[in-house]
Amino acid sequence: MNTNHTFTATSAEVDAAAIAPLPQSRKVYQQGSRPDIRVPFREISQGETPTMFGGEANPPLTVYDSSGPYTDPSVNIDIRKGLPALRSAWIAERNDTEQLDGASSEYGQARLQDPGLASLRFELKRAPRRAVAGSNVSQVHYARRGIITPEMEFIAIRENLQRERYVEMLRASSPDGDRLVQRLLRQHPGQSFGAAIPVSVTPEFVRAEVARGRAIIPANINHPESEPMVIGRNFLVKINANIGNSALSSNISDEVEKMTWAIRWGGDTVMDLSTGKNIHETREWIIRNSPVPIGTVPIYQALEKVDGKAEELTWEIFRDTLIEQAEQGVDYFTVHAGVRLPFIPMTANRMTGIVSRGGSIMAKWCLAHHKESFIYERFEDICEIMKAYDVSFSLGDGLRPGSGYDANDEAQFAELKTLGELTQVAWQHDVQVMVEGPGHVPMHLIKENMDMQLKHCHEAPFYTLGPLTTDIAPGYDHITSGIGAALIGWYGTAMLCYVTPKEHLGLPNKKDVKDGIITYKIAAHAADLAKGHPGAAIRDNALSKARFEFRWDDQFNLGLDPDTAKDFHDETLPKDSMKVA
Amino acid sequence: MNTNHTFTATSAEVDAAAIAPLPQSRKVYQQGSRPDIRVPFREISQGETPTMFGGEANPPLTVYDSSGPYTDPSVNIDIRKGLPALRSAWIAERNDTEQLDGASSEYGQARLQDPGLASLRFELKRAPRRAVAGSNVSQVHYARRGIITPEMEFIAIRENLQRERYVEMLRASSPDGDRLVQRLLRQHPGQSFGAAIPVSVTPEFVRAEVARGRAIIPANINHPESEPMVIGRNFLVKINANIGNSALSSNISDEVEKMTWAIRWGGDTVMDLSTGKNIHETREWIIRNSPVPIGTVPIYQALEKVDGKAEELTWEIFRDTLIEQAEQGVDYFTVHAGVRLPFIPMTANRMTGIVSRGGSIMAKWCLAHHKESFIYERFEDICEIMKAYDVSFSLGDGLRPGSGYDANDEAQFAELKTLGELTQVAWQHDVQVMVEGPGHVPMHLIKENMDMQLKHCHEAPFYTLGPLTTDIAPGYDHITSGIGAALIGWYGTAMLCYVTPKEHLGLPNKKDVKDGIITYKIAAHAADLAKGHPGAAIRDNALSKARFEFRWDDQFNLGLDPDTAKDFHDETLPKDSMKVA
Repeated sequence: MNTNHTFTATSAEVDAAAIAPLPQSRKVYQQGSRPDIRVPFREISQGETPTMFGGEANPPLTVYDSSGPYTDPSVNIDIRKGLPALRSAWIAERNDTEQLDGASSEYGQARLQDPGLASLRFELKRAPRRAVAGSNVSQVHYARRGIITPEMEFIAIRENLQRERYVEMLRASSPDGDRLVQRLLRQHPGQSFGAAIPVSVTPEFVRAEVARGRAIIPANINHPESEPMVIGRNFLVKINANIGNSALSSNISDEVEKMTWAIRWGGDTVMDLSTGKNIHETREWIIRNSPVPIGTVPIYQALEKVDGKAEELTWEIFRDTLIEQAEQGVDYFTVHAGVRLPFIPMTANRMTGIVSRGGSIMAKWCLAHHKESFIYERFEDICEIMKAYDVSFSLGDGLRPGSGYDANDEAQFAELKTLGELTQVAWQHDVQVMVEGPGHVPMHLIKENMDMQLKHCHEAPFYTLGPLTTDIAPGYDHITSGIGAALIGWYGTAMLCYVTPKEHLGLPNKKDVKDGIITYKIAAHAADLAKGHPGAAIRDNALSKARFEFRWDDQFNLGLDPDTAKDFHDETLPKDSMKVA
Repeated sequence: MNTNHTFTATSAEVDAAAIAPLPQSRKVYQQGSRPDIRVPFREISQGETPTMFGGEANPPLTVYDSSGPYTDPSVNIDIRKGLPALRSAWIAERNDTEQLDGASSEYGQARLQDPGLASLRFELKRAPRRAVAGSNVSQVHYARRGIITPEMEFIAIRENLQRERYVEMLRASSPDGDRLVQRLLRQHPGQSFGAAIPVSVTPEFVRAEVARGRAIIPANINHPESEPMVIGRNFLVKINANIGNSALSSNISDEVEKMTWAIRWGGDTVMDLSTGKNIHETREWIIRNSPVPIGTVPIYQALEKVDGKAEELTWEIFRDTLIEQAEQGVDYFTVHAGVRLPFIPMTANRMTGIVSRGGSIMAKWCLAHHKESFIYERFEDICEIMKAYDVSFSLGDGLRPGSGYDANDEAQFAELKTLGELTQVAWQHDVQVMVEGPGHVPMHLIKENMDMQLKHCHEAPFYTLGPLTTDIAPGYDHITSGIGAALIGWYGTAMLCYVTPKEHLGLPNKKDVKDGIITYKIAAHAADLAKGHPGAAIRDNALSKARFEFRWDDQFNLGLDPDTAKDFHDETLPKDSMKVA
């Protein structure tokens, strides 16, 4: 990454690595009930199986594709212009929003008017939208009124992965097609711990799951570039990638590059955790170029506005930050509303205290003023902001354990119960909610986390950071936590926040981002298989067939990372002739 | 590695990377009841915690050390001479063995007499030993007679990790010592699924576990260089590293280097799976320089002796190979005795057939002759060989699944039941046994593997390859399988065979070996924590304390891989002053 170059808006370029096609893959779209519902997939073609009588065809496999237009060679990517606003018409035709004259946050206005930022600024041509007074533009609000939005239909198509088409192709591929269908679709019955995943996802199913709060669609009306996706226990397990610069390093193009790199390998959402200067501008560049939902932790930026002095934070500064970011298009906010004053003493005997950055900021504020958290007290005011833009809550676990020692303790579960209460408050406002979870938890204590969350948070989607199952492997925490992530995903967690090899040690670079993503794609898929997600085994079966038939290239290409698989193979057997033999 | 250099015995040198000390670590020995029981550990020193009143001491932590004399700076390593034969006196004083005049296998004699091999040959000065006629020199034989061998005492000391000494140091370190003991030793109660791990391991406990077949001590009398270790469900979970050259690549020094590299990072045993030429000589170099037990798959070499034609294998060739390897000092043999003729048709509808190399060799033989496997039929003859040298069985799962599709099928479990029957046959002969397990298994089907093994194999130690929990990530199968390994270790598997990133793609190089080892050390430790292994959390707690106190160097050094942790940290914050700050 060009860490040493100065970023300028006029010369910004997309990372070449983000737009290269993946081997033997092409972008395909499935149209929904209207022409502007075009759901993207990646189709991986396969070679024939050599047989005595001319070869057995192996139909192409369709996989979930989070990479957006970057991997579509017919789209001309210019990150200075941002991605096409594919949801604009859907948002506009609902007739419940208005285009503002400009940013309504004080900070957003100030940044726009600062001439010193001209060289950094993304030139957004449109003004933000907001719900008209008295309206609620959240997906859960529509869902509860029985409305199936285009977003919901998009998601239904997306979750089905064109399985029916694959079955048809397989059946038609040979006289033996029925047997092939049986083989390739065979899957062990799962153990779902109460998840109820339908064989085929309908738009109505998406609506119903969102309506009862068991799934969310992070889709800010100011992020019309995003391709709708769903987070919920009865859908494919999703993963999130954290990016973000610090005061010490990384610039805007690095962060855009990390985002495009993360989604190329399968990041379903991206959180921008930037803390340095120019985080407003960095965020704008990321959102305008992101086809996946973007999450943030607004308290980080609020803290920058008071020069890092937690005790100087106020509701007004926080509120202005929420509006500033909502109008940029952030799709979900981590809000540490459960860090309540009475819970802080519960952390006194911990090994690692409060390790959540947002949690420790709020704990510091509460102690400095000896007052209840203003985020907790103003929670309904925050709901009003969320519903005006459709920002989803990610209720932060500010008291999560920072070590196995502190796992499942009084502080953690006291906060979790509060998050459950706040979930219900948000639902009363028709605001979408997911709930964050740990952290650091030995394997045998992981299930209790899921069980407690299901019980206290009424099946709102759980979104966990790992958890790390041991603390003795700094440098390998993608693995210590990948184990925990696979387990908690199996038990019912809807989205897994990745951990990279740099966890606890430094900021991830592109290699770390990829290592984290692939590890978490493995964990999420292992969870889908164990839950018995319908059709989850198709890709495993197709790859195993390719492996058994020595179709090396197909084995690479059907995998999560064809480049690495091929490189590793060629290291040992560099000759193409040997690979085929 | 010097793959391109020609190996010669006279110029062979130890890999410099294998003998470098680990940061802030020193080799310590704890003496047992006699001066020649000296149990090695690695002691990691820590810095002080800065406090207002001068600093809180953090006593050094003792960790399990599989690296042998290589990490002892007082030992002069010369791989041409091999390691000191620390068990020689123990073996000799039992008075049940005799020194032979020379190798008693035909092949072993032929190799020794081949002048063309002079430049490759390890110059072993001693002749092999064998039990005197009518004797059984296996550890289980002694155990059942109530004899506590020096090996058992060594293991008891080793498994306790000097915990009592640590507690004493901690208590004496400050007036607040009692509180520190409580904190550093605190551990969540485990979920052991029937394992019964004592708070402190006594030599008598080791004996009793070996006597009832629930643990094995792989300790061939011709491998007196090995430091005794135990494999059993009521001990620390162990890991194995596979090495081995192929016809295509790698030479003797590469393999010795992989062995020393594997044990440096925590390999508890090493399997030499070499298949190229000179495997007899390669094995000799590895065993003579290995402080950990060495396992092999003798059928691989037997196949070389019949030019790769499985149908030409005979009992006589196999028998000669067993004796050849037993007299070199191989500590355990993978023997695919459960691949019986009637089971082979059960694999017909599999996705990936028979993927075990040994399994497919035997299946081919059975089909070619349409006869029952000679390994199965001659099993009691094999027991006679095993007991004459104390070679342990690793009953191979030749019909293990090669894909999630084939997991837990009829063929796999038919073989497992046979392995259970053979376990009892071996036990009738007082021969040590462990049982191998899969392979490729989705998460929710893993527990059935453990349950079936416990039931049918009467608690003989289980030794599994992963299992891989999904098949879609070639290039990352250390991770797909590390998840499964952690789970099955938790459920009761005694030893986890590592999988490297090169699995399915090629032979591992040193980087792959290390990645595989660290991943499996994580899995094994996560399993120990979840089982509630007494004291397992101490290292996690110490590292978490260092982390919370910003003692960066201690955090690196207490981890499984200090080098990588430090490098990752320094990448982002290269200045030492910033690291301390």
